[in-house]
Amino acid sequence: MDVPVNPGIEALYLEDFQVGNRYRSPAITVTERQIISYALDYDPQAFHIDVEAGRAHPFGQVFASGLHTLALSFRLFAESRVLAACAHAGMGMDKLRWRKPVMPGDTLHLELEVLSARPSDSRAGLGILVLRHDTVNQDAALVLTLECTHMIKRRPPG
Amino acid sequence: MDVPVNPGIEALYLEDFQVGNRYRSPAITVTERQIISYALDYDPQAFHIDVEAGRAHPFGQVFASGLHTLALSFRLFAESRVLAACAHAGMGMDKLRWRKPVMPGDTLHLELEVLSARPSDSRAGLGILVLRHDTVNQDAALVLTLECTHMIKRRPPG
Repeated sequence: MDVPVNPGIEALYLEDFQVGNRYRSPAITVTERQIISYALDYDPQAFHIDVEAGRAHPFGQVFASGLHTLALSFRLFAESRVLAACAHAGMGMDKLRWRKPVMPGDTLHLELEVLSARPSDSRAGLGILVLRHDTVNQDAALVLTLECTHMIKRRPPG
Repeated sequence: MDVPVNPGIEALYLEDFQVGNRYRSPAITVTERQIISYALDYDPQAFHIDVEAGRAHPFGQVFASGLHTLALSFRLFAESRVLAACAHAGMGMDKLRWRKPVMPGDTLHLELEVLSARPSDSRAGLGILVLRHDTVNQDAALVLTLECTHMIKRRPPG
């Protein structure tokens, strides 16, 4: 594409998020080297780090730790720049489901949709944003879905 | 402690998990270098990777990405060896809450409790295990809580 993925996105605040708004991240290709390296540090199960064990698994090769898929999804979220101006803190995640394994060579992107956006009852200047995160592969198949709740900034006065 | 953390844990299958059973992981100390390195790859927000931006933040220094805290929690989960014999696949997570930031020098361990364990309705030889994961720091404060659903193996016959 020769147009920006999310034009004007660098300056969004709570007031800019309406239920149903959608955003899309750039894409990233996952390599076997990355899969093995991430799993060695955080999820060293044989079918993630040992090519022979991968061949013996029903999936037929090493595949990404679900945690790695989640980490890639968050990297893509950062690259979407949706919270570039307004990020304050992550609060939580719900309904996370690993729907399909991620294999070496898969290319992932993130599709986001606003589920709710409201001012904080207790913290001036802040609000609560709930986004659906759908991580999608090159075949348009969902690999990971979740709902993430963020505390974000309201638009500064003036 | 001079006793193993979870004696006998290497051979657990679905039938061994009873609601309320508890397990504990070893501990790990989080370093500033790790915090910056992880965030550079997966969550490159200034307050995770830039010591000056960390000083300007209310927390007073760089602090771990919530995703990094989650990754460390899963590394501790692997080290607990609870699913050493029976791991099949992660299915999902619910009710994840980042309760407190993780700072350089914090030492974390994981406390696990069985919430439910039942045979799969559709897949012979497998079952569904739901665990509460509480990630706890050196002051006994909860930093991260979640519920994780795993597909695991039933005890092999014979």
